[in-house]
Amino acid sequence: MTAYATLEARFRRLGLVNEAVAMLNWDTAAMMPEGAAAARAEQLAELKVIAHETLVDPRLADLLEAAAGEGIDDWQRANLAEMRRMWLHATAVPADLVAAHSRACSECEMAWRKARPAGDFASIRPLLQRVLDLTRELAAAKADRLGVTPYEALLDQFEPGGRVAEIDRLFDHLAARLPALIEGALAAQAVRPAPVVPKGPFPVEAQRRAARRLMERLGFEFDRGRLDQSLHPFCGGTPDDVRITTRYDEADFARALMGVLHETGHALYERGLPARWRRQPVGEARGMSIHESQSLLIEMQVCRSRQFLTFAAPILRESFGGGGREWTAENLYRLGTRVARSLIRVDADEVTYPAHVILRYRLERALIAGELDLAELPAAWSEGMERLLAVTPPDDRDGCLQDIHWYDGAWGYFPTYTLGAMTAAQLFDAAKRAVPGLLDAVERGDFAPLLEWLRANVHGLGSRFSTRELMVRATGRSLDAAIFEGHLRARYLAA
Amino acid sequence: MTAYATLEARFRRLGLVNEAVAMLNWDTAAMMPEGAAAARAEQLAELKVIAHETLVDPRLADLLEAAAGEGIDDWQRANLAEMRRMWLHATAVPADLVAAHSRACSECEMAWRKARPAGDFASIRPLLQRVLDLTRELAAAKADRLGVTPYEALLDQFEPGGRVAEIDRLFDHLAARLPALIEGALAAQAVRPAPVVPKGPFPVEAQRRAARRLMERLGFEFDRGRLDQSLHPFCGGTPDDVRITTRYDEADFARALMGVLHETGHALYERGLPARWRRQPVGEARGMSIHESQSLLIEMQVCRSRQFLTFAAPILRESFGGGGREWTAENLYRLGTRVARSLIRVDADEVTYPAHVILRYRLERALIAGELDLAELPAAWSEGMERLLAVTPPDDRDGCLQDIHWYDGAWGYFPTYTLGAMTAAQLFDAAKRAVPGLLDAVERGDFAPLLEWLRANVHGLGSRFSTRELMVRATGRSLDAAIFEGHLRARYLAA
Repeated sequence: MTAYATLEARFRRLGLVNEAVAMLNWDTAAMMPEGAAAARAEQLAELKVIAHETLVDPRLADLLEAAAGEGIDDWQRANLAEMRRMWLHATAVPADLVAAHSRACSECEMAWRKARPAGDFASIRPLLQRVLDLTRELAAAKADRLGVTPYEALLDQFEPGGRVAEIDRLFDHLAARLPALIEGALAAQAVRPAPVVPKGPFPVEAQRRAARRLMERLGFEFDRGRLDQSLHPFCGGTPDDVRITTRYDEADFARALMGVLHETGHALYERGLPARWRRQPVGEARGMSIHESQSLLIEMQVCRSRQFLTFAAPILRESFGGGGREWTAENLYRLGTRVARSLIRVDADEVTYPAHVILRYRLERALIAGELDLAELPAAWSEGMERLLAVTPPDDRDGCLQDIHWYDGAWGYFPTYTLGAMTAAQLFDAAKRAVPGLLDAVERGDFAPLLEWLRANVHGLGSRFSTRELMVRATGRSLDAAIFEGHLRARYLAA
Repeated sequence: MTAYATLEARFRRLGLVNEAVAMLNWDTAAMMPEGAAAARAEQLAELKVIAHETLVDPRLADLLEAAAGEGIDDWQRANLAEMRRMWLHATAVPADLVAAHSRACSECEMAWRKARPAGDFASIRPLLQRVLDLTRELAAAKADRLGVTPYEALLDQFEPGGRVAEIDRLFDHLAARLPALIEGALAAQAVRPAPVVPKGPFPVEAQRRAARRLMERLGFEFDRGRLDQSLHPFCGGTPDDVRITTRYDEADFARALMGVLHETGHALYERGLPARWRRQPVGEARGMSIHESQSLLIEMQVCRSRQFLTFAAPILRESFGGGGREWTAENLYRLGTRVARSLIRVDADEVTYPAHVILRYRLERALIAGELDLAELPAAWSEGMERLLAVTPPDDRDGCLQDIHWYDGAWGYFPTYTLGAMTAAQLFDAAKRAVPGLLDAVERGDFAPLLEWLRANVHGLGSRFSTRELMVRATGRSLDAAIFEGHLRARYLAA
């Protein structure tokens, strides 16, 4: 057996254990009775230890080196590179630091669940400080092994190969234009009649049926996945069994529906990953910016378009028994593209969302670099919100306490949201150029041409290429903020 | 770290992996979309390999020996004995035989799914022969290590410590009396007016609500478990998260309901296992005869009693909007204790069921001993049915093809059904003597006294004692067929 084949066998085990973890995580959110939480935590922890042991086995170093000298093809070489990346991350940090970090994150996240509604940043600051200290230690250790800056080492966990210079360039481009763009979008909106909001209640069962109908139309295979409910919607499971969840609000059908369409984008990506490379690192999703691009391509580029809503409006009318002018495609389009300056990231629209993300990216970079102290965070947050969005949070609850990410230890994650939005715009732009009549097909409810293009240019490639290479191959150039900017201008500044 | 503590850590991992397997098995039956079956099979196989590796690790032999010499308490010693038993089973059989057996069983089971409806024993006989041959090989290897007969080695997988001499004694006692008992029950039934069958349809939602209400009353904790649907009802999950499934028939509420109550008995046992010993062998259920006794104690001893039905009748009337004389406790009791000679084990009543089991036990013993050839099985089956039950199957579909067990490789399992029925009668008899007013409490819908007695005498003991010791401690004597016989006489031969 070659070293490479031995590695494939080991990573296959890792992949299968991770699939079990994914299914248990779905169960935890969607099915598990509350009283079973402690037992579940132990099951998950043990499976993660087993997975981790596979990666830190001392024989892996020799195998990785030996395999590099073997005659392997391009996919196998890309697989080997991904194996190496996972191995570097796993072995860079001493076990006791991993454990201390994990405990600190759990503790801080638990406390955050109370501190947030109370708007009490002071009480949670010591716990967050501990998370930050340990995250910086962990980042330094990984930076050392990976040969990048500490922030980039954190970023690499979510966005392999992500670089600060590149993100700065993209975000600075956007940040410089965003205030005027928001201003312009609001002005354009103000001169149009306000859209009419459909009146509920919208029964859960009707919402579910409508969501399933649109999911299926978009290409979601219900014999390879499910739609269920959970407190926090997500896309989980495995490529052969994709589990989407949502949360229904009987007063507002659009929230769950757009959420489901967003998760469907993630699901189509997972489902389309190369079957030949299941449970191998090269068969996995490329990174979080590409993953988010797939959800935003479906939700923002496709499903908030006039073409999609022309197709979907009759289905929605039928599902909810609606008939008035609030159910026209044009009104639904106006509703789906409303812009408002707001305090909360997760409620933000497509135009203002990047401002929320850029603020967080800049703040977390400064915190990790030690250039900003946690004591100064609330003030820095307010100042940033004023500068980028011209709004001021009245308290920390709707300020620096609003997102779970930092409290839960997910530093380096935030930029992937807006990188994903930019990537989505650029990929959809390329798809429209590559596939004649793509938007006409969308308007007919025919998503096969789009899915085919995505399968060939994104989904089916897994981690065969770097994010940058993938973009160059699919769109002719690396990520370019001007395309996303152009999309925003076309959708929000046109009359 | 002592050898014993090292063993506990290793068996804890095994226990947690098995919990993950249990949850995935539940998901497979209750939630998984069909298209994900192949991926799920690979996940389960890998987790089972990981579990198996824990048991066959060569260092285990030394650890088990060293731990035996350490100062450990009675529970720990019982735990060590169970660890040793699991280790003996796992290491007795060479890996290639385990794999060949497992493949043969999968193949045969798949073929059985087609052969059974077609009543085609001839076509499946070669596959079953292969299963039987490999099972005999496996039994011989285990017998050698355990120091028992080959059939007892198979039995030991489900019923630790089970012995043929004991089972023969119990079953012979019953078999000698069963024909007359069945005759007498049918005669007594014939002179009473026939019970009235309530007319449906009984909507699934109403059935579910009634089932949940009764489950909760019996002590099932819905924050530690769930009730869902699957093709083949079962009780799965883990002690902290017990997952029951059922299958609803809108024409017949009783089938799903009695099934749910049966599984609730299993669930209460799992839930009541000693929390101090979670994920240790001594903390697990004692064996299949005790497990089945807990389901039959709830279903047969309690829920088909006049007292229970007096309590439950108003709940059922309310659930299904029933009002006529078919909804009286007495009528429901007559319905729940109807006796009929029939061909199919899973449809059999309490009186005829043991005849089905005794037949299968005798046949599988002869097949494993090489005293009966598979070619003679259909004839031997018919002859046994005539002798024990005075019915003759018209074909193999309703004869030796009806149960999945042999085709799936579960040889040595059948006797636990009737051992369980006997155990249930004996435990309930002891509980009634130990707890004054137990039946009055049942009639009031108060199951706390019963559950308390079961927790103390059965559930909470896990595998601390052998099945025989458990029975002596709980009931004053080892398993005695006369008590079950007495129960049948009292319930079915009285006027």
